[in-house]
Amino acid sequence: MNDDDHSLLQRRRQVLGTGAPLFYEQPLHLVRGEGAWVFDADGRRYLDVYNNVPHVGHCHPHVVKAASRQLATLNINTRYLHGNVVDYAERLAATTDYDHAGVFFTCTGTESNELALRIARHVTGGTGIIASSVNYHGNSAVLASLCTAFPVPEPFPDFARLVQVPDPYRHRQGRSDAELASHYLDEARGAIASLEESGVKLAALLIDPSLANEGLPEFVPGYLTGLVELVRAAGGLVIADEVQSGFGRTGAAMWAHQYHGITPDIITTGKPMGNGFPIGSVISSYDVVDEFGRSANYFNTFGGNPVATAAAAAVLEVIENENLIANAATVGAYVQNRLTELMTRHEIIGNVRCRGMFFGLELVADRVSKNPSPLAGRIVNRMKDRGVLLSRIGPFDNILKMRPSMIFTFEQADILLAALDETLEEAAR
Amino acid sequence: MNDDDHSLLQRRRQVLGTGAPLFYEQPLHLVRGEGAWVFDADGRRYLDVYNNVPHVGHCHPHVVKAASRQLATLNINTRYLHGNVVDYAERLAATTDYDHAGVFFTCTGTESNELALRIARHVTGGTGIIASSVNYHGNSAVLASLCTAFPVPEPFPDFARLVQVPDPYRHRQGRSDAELASHYLDEARGAIASLEESGVKLAALLIDPSLANEGLPEFVPGYLTGLVELVRAAGGLVIADEVQSGFGRTGAAMWAHQYHGITPDIITTGKPMGNGFPIGSVISSYDVVDEFGRSANYFNTFGGNPVATAAAAAVLEVIENENLIANAATVGAYVQNRLTELMTRHEIIGNVRCRGMFFGLELVADRVSKNPSPLAGRIVNRMKDRGVLLSRIGPFDNILKMRPSMIFTFEQADILLAALDETLEEAAR
Repeated sequence: MNDDDHSLLQRRRQVLGTGAPLFYEQPLHLVRGEGAWVFDADGRRYLDVYNNVPHVGHCHPHVVKAASRQLATLNINTRYLHGNVVDYAERLAATTDYDHAGVFFTCTGTESNELALRIARHVTGGTGIIASSVNYHGNSAVLASLCTAFPVPEPFPDFARLVQVPDPYRHRQGRSDAELASHYLDEARGAIASLEESGVKLAALLIDPSLANEGLPEFVPGYLTGLVELVRAAGGLVIADEVQSGFGRTGAAMWAHQYHGITPDIITTGKPMGNGFPIGSVISSYDVVDEFGRSANYFNTFGGNPVATAAAAAVLEVIENENLIANAATVGAYVQNRLTELMTRHEIIGNVRCRGMFFGLELVADRVSKNPSPLAGRIVNRMKDRGVLLSRIGPFDNILKMRPSMIFTFEQADILLAALDETLEEAAR
Repeated sequence: MNDDDHSLLQRRRQVLGTGAPLFYEQPLHLVRGEGAWVFDADGRRYLDVYNNVPHVGHCHPHVVKAASRQLATLNINTRYLHGNVVDYAERLAATTDYDHAGVFFTCTGTESNELALRIARHVTGGTGIIASSVNYHGNSAVLASLCTAFPVPEPFPDFARLVQVPDPYRHRQGRSDAELASHYLDEARGAIASLEESGVKLAALLIDPSLANEGLPEFVPGYLTGLVELVRAAGGLVIADEVQSGFGRTGAAMWAHQYHGITPDIITTGKPMGNGFPIGSVISSYDVVDEFGRSANYFNTFGGNPVATAAAAAVLEVIENENLIANAATVGAYVQNRLTELMTRHEIIGNVRCRGMFFGLELVADRVSKNPSPLAGRIVNRMKDRGVLLSRIGPFDNILKMRPSMIFTFEQADILLAALDETLEEAAR
């Protein structure tokens, strides 16, 4: 950080507060982005392996052009007829498995999950929510109170229960997949029963099918489908939070729930949808959307406006034109293989996780105890010094989180992997 | 509506649901906006006297340029240092009466009010909310449950109480201002006491100082300041929802609460802030912002990003450069006078309300009974046929709502007033 950056940081603290989060010990002052690259105020470039909001790359010209053109033409709410919102809603609906899907537009993932909860409560007549033990689904009063991924001031609500995040890396203890799934499902059964015993009727399971905030744990075949069955048997709906995992991120399908073999009752989206233009959505079967819309008079001032839907449509076009889901699969598989190779040289890597273009590297003190490594924070900062941006997640904040834009190339992957190799070697000294 | 519009409407219903709200009996298919004007698909132009989101006029070139330029440069979250968010936060903070203000950025008014409630509950340790009897503060689970401006499926929450909207036009019954204020304040005292009796500790009064959704009722001197005193005495904070009323709308000050002589603990903003680019904020004294930020790890992915804050800064610049607060005062006073004149010719007008560039025309069946006129809906539709867009609000949906952009001119006001004159005359036949 130079003097100007220090001064900017000081001013920032004086108006946004000292708690306003910043990445890195020495915050990074970014001024420009292009594709997978971002540039700081001194002109230094960094490979962005963290930000999934610029889903098709920073400042993708097709998206910038579509949004800018519409900004100059008309930006108005959806209480007037406009082609953009209808065209885009149809395209979005067509990506799902519903025979006839309906769509609500929002501005953020928080708003999407709030709306999904309202719908689930309306449909079921219940209020109860099941979420994962390391969840974050939004910053509103209800969603924040559920949050267990980081501390929040609100008490955990009476209407919610948590199900333990599967973590076969730590919990397998010689058990087969079926035994492990059965173990987790027994716990989930207990959580659902506990709600019932408290007189709370279940409304929904709210879950990211990729368990991203949970640290992208290894899969336990049968677990997610079993959990969905339990929730449905108890009368609850299933909400798939695709805010991080959607739009082809897994490399296998448009939606993570398709990749994971479940059919949710409600899908919520956000972050990558408009490549940074604020837009989110709630997708469900048409009947549910139609009925809730009529009952609740749901309206969102900015949601689905012509600019937001122009940007979002452009994102879908880039995904298709540049074949980005296939790219997530091939580059993703390459990175996964290379990360697994790195394990042979770096004892600190306990476990490698991958969901298409989304990677987790669990760092451990040693491979026997599997205790979280205390070095993850330092490694994230040293990677930045080497010009590569990533972050960390998981219940112990020891899992390197890598979630580059969908245009990430083999060459860029090599830059990431070389920097990781050096940094992990340095950390072992 | 032509055949293409009918087809678009049909497709819209099939993907957004039949409940997705649209204005007018024959929905309007808009394709372009410029200044105070919007244009439909057939090239017909309409004077927009309704939409306050395009605060400085549709597609204002200064705002379009600022947002487009930044969209092409960098659009990233605020976990990196960036000048835009700091510069804009400082400018926004400087418009308030706090000695040292702090700011959180959100994307929408709903998110702003959600965050304000979280802060108030954190600061007070209470959960109770006081809102007006005709309120709408957002579409999230908690805010929707409070809503009484239109039907919602959620039950009204145990932690909330309503205070009756002052309506001196109907309630005066010979009483002086002081007597009337005292009457309403007695009711408010009862609402606060009722919360206490239920064991609910008060967290906040959540109120739009202009009472916009309530139908812009006439003021009752002493009421709002008295209500604030009662709430503070009971340990609650005061949240001024400036989503509709802020950014100079009143013509007297940047914020409606300044115009109305109260100093809220928390200010929330939304709609007009980015002239259509999704951005909202929560402003409070620095200590409150700093403390809550550290306690709650509040983060909003799109909130305050460089594009949103570029658009919002451009809006402040236009307000200042084009002297729009003064314009709201002068054109607003002109419209108010002319509306009052219209009363002499149109018995249907029971009451004229004004807050700078924000007007309400209460339509009554007759001036003795003051029963709501059933003609408001027809008048709104006939005004559209005459090329002028407005809407209606209030507990009986009989108050014409006029809220043009801040650039509204005397000439445009004359177009509105002529169309109103004709339409009201026609309605009386």
